[in-house]
Amino acid sequence: MEIKTPTLLIDKEKAISNIQRMLEKANKANASLRPHFKTHFSAEVGSWFKEKGVTQCTVSSVSMAQYFADHDWVDITIAFPYNLLEHEEINQLAKKINLNLLIESTESLDHLKKHVKNAVGYFIKVDVGTHRTGVDPRNEELIGQLVNGSSDGAQFRGFISHAGHTYGCRDLESIKWIFDGSVKVLSELKNKFGGIISYGDTPTSSLVDDLSFCDEMRPGNFVFYDWMQHQIGSCSIDQIAVCMACPVVAIHKERNEVVVYGGAVHLSKDMVYEKDIQGKDRKCFGKMVALAENGWSTEVLGNVERLSQEHGIIKLSDEQIARVKVGDIIGILPVHSCLTADLQGHYLATTGEVIEKMKKK
Amino acid sequence: MEIKTPTLLIDKEKAISNIQRMLEKANKANASLRPHFKTHFSAEVGSWFKEKGVTQCTVSSVSMAQYFADHDWVDITIAFPYNLLEHEEINQLAKKINLNLLIESTESLDHLKKHVKNAVGYFIKVDVGTHRTGVDPRNEELIGQLVNGSSDGAQFRGFISHAGHTYGCRDLESIKWIFDGSVKVLSELKNKFGGIISYGDTPTSSLVDDLSFCDEMRPGNFVFYDWMQHQIGSCSIDQIAVCMACPVVAIHKERNEVVVYGGAVHLSKDMVYEKDIQGKDRKCFGKMVALAENGWSTEVLGNVERLSQEHGIIKLSDEQIARVKVGDIIGILPVHSCLTADLQGHYLATTGEVIEKMKKK
Repeated sequence: MEIKTPTLLIDKEKAISNIQRMLEKANKANASLRPHFKTHFSAEVGSWFKEKGVTQCTVSSVSMAQYFADHDWVDITIAFPYNLLEHEEINQLAKKINLNLLIESTESLDHLKKHVKNAVGYFIKVDVGTHRTGVDPRNEELIGQLVNGSSDGAQFRGFISHAGHTYGCRDLESIKWIFDGSVKVLSELKNKFGGIISYGDTPTSSLVDDLSFCDEMRPGNFVFYDWMQHQIGSCSIDQIAVCMACPVVAIHKERNEVVVYGGAVHLSKDMVYEKDIQGKDRKCFGKMVALAENGWSTEVLGNVERLSQEHGIIKLSDEQIARVKVGDIIGILPVHSCLTADLQGHYLATTGEVIEKMKKK
Repeated sequence: MEIKTPTLLIDKEKAISNIQRMLEKANKANASLRPHFKTHFSAEVGSWFKEKGVTQCTVSSVSMAQYFADHDWVDITIAFPYNLLEHEEINQLAKKINLNLLIESTESLDHLKKHVKNAVGYFIKVDVGTHRTGVDPRNEELIGQLVNGSSDGAQFRGFISHAGHTYGCRDLESIKWIFDGSVKVLSELKNKFGGIISYGDTPTSSLVDDLSFCDEMRPGNFVFYDWMQHQIGSCSIDQIAVCMACPVVAIHKERNEVVVYGGAVHLSKDMVYEKDIQGKDRKCFGKMVALAENGWSTEVLGNVERLSQEHGIIKLSDEQIARVKVGDIIGILPVHSCLTADLQGHYLATTGEVIEKMKKK
């Protein structure tokens, strides 16, 4: 494989292992796996799930649902609040596939029932503490209204939650604490109102042992993982299945920095804080590793300290910087693989094949 | 214009005024304007410059140079360290157009002279304090070697700098201080070694009155501006020429938040800190404004406090939130228009026409 510009490499073997492991977890919990495809945006990566028997998926937009429906996915949940303005596109989709939407207000449900004529399912989005979207689980009056709004054309399916606040956790105990709260709240709603429970961000799905309270698991990031998930504790470094190959374009030994072609338009500006050797907070926009034949090594060689539009600045030790030359290609483990994947025109498998993905229109 | 999903609106009239103003500044300084096109990635936006008589441009990658060369730009500087690995593509481009590259090491210059056979120009990148790339201006030995490396095939053009550290400034005095240092350093190099001076980030180009020390100005962001530039002081709110139209999908009055379809994959995760009413630091990922016929109002109605992949969370006052309904479309002035523009598949003029841009391959 000839790489000349920033290129996101996918280690298919690692990705398939990640899929297999999550599938086993879902099986053990007696839950179905409905993976979130907003991490990879790719029919080909989707096909790796299909080969393992997965037939349902989750997406975060109507356009992503259209893309996967065009690639033979016939059971899709759009895990994003129903966008009234796309009712025509939703109606067209619902004609072709089993489509589930998310609802959190009576206004939205009324609009859906009025404007979408082909049958859809809907989940009530429940806020389990992330405070992004969703109904307060104590608001049983509203929940009752939303459940009772079920009709032939818009059928109540159950309760759906995304515990996105687990991304702020850095130990299992905090994740378990969030999880226990969600189990309590969602189980009570299910007991009272019926329907299924759809749950499962990547940190929880990776770290919590027993997920049998839920009927459906919906993690997405785990197929690739990334440095943030490693920092949370969701994965080991060698489970990270994507790596950005970046050409070295400048070396500044006087400040222990190399400059790579690979910036915010390739990696995204998402970052995590971490402690440096002196215990001070520093920013991390990715971790440098060495590329190897058909992949990359898992030893971290340096920290991506800054990103501008096309430049990445990596801090290296004296020993490491002595080994780097202008024109070398190094690897960067991304901080947030979903946003990095979104920025690519295509991916490259470590075995050399181009992997196509959804294009922005 | 019918908007259903996040759509970046461009007010062409404002953009053209921004171009006109910068052109007048360059004329006053007796400098040529070589605008950076990494802000808009669009042949059509480029044509607005051409209509004002601009014939030279700056880009940040070989692929961007190819795109603009394909759209009849015949004098292009790639303001990014020479990427050895793309020497073939560079050689092809140099056959068609006047191409300038950036050099900061003898290794890169030697490689260029050996591998690129069609004539190119090169600038020596000088670090005026940003410490991203560039030669230390005190390293006259290296600079001398790089100047003396000039040949028929690779011709020394002059000194180029990007004072990116002005983006950290929030007052004119700090920007002037950086500017004065650059003037001193670059003028000395020019006097000693010859060549021209190419300078001009958007904050400096917008705020410093007399730029006559430089021969060429290279700002990019000014064509659109954004909230960060407004915070720096480079522009007024009504000079910001782009606004993201976003559908409202959920309202949470209990915490004064609306949720829009418009997240990190539409706006980018770039952000600025600012003080809230209590004087505490808060994050800003954009500013909410109201859309109006053929544009948007310039009164800021709310702050985009958080972004996830597809969601934007906007904080509003009681009074403002009472006016918003699910299904409304609101506007968001982006924090960093270059990164926001990169994320789009196309733009929409406020007059209704689709504006095409470079696609990722």
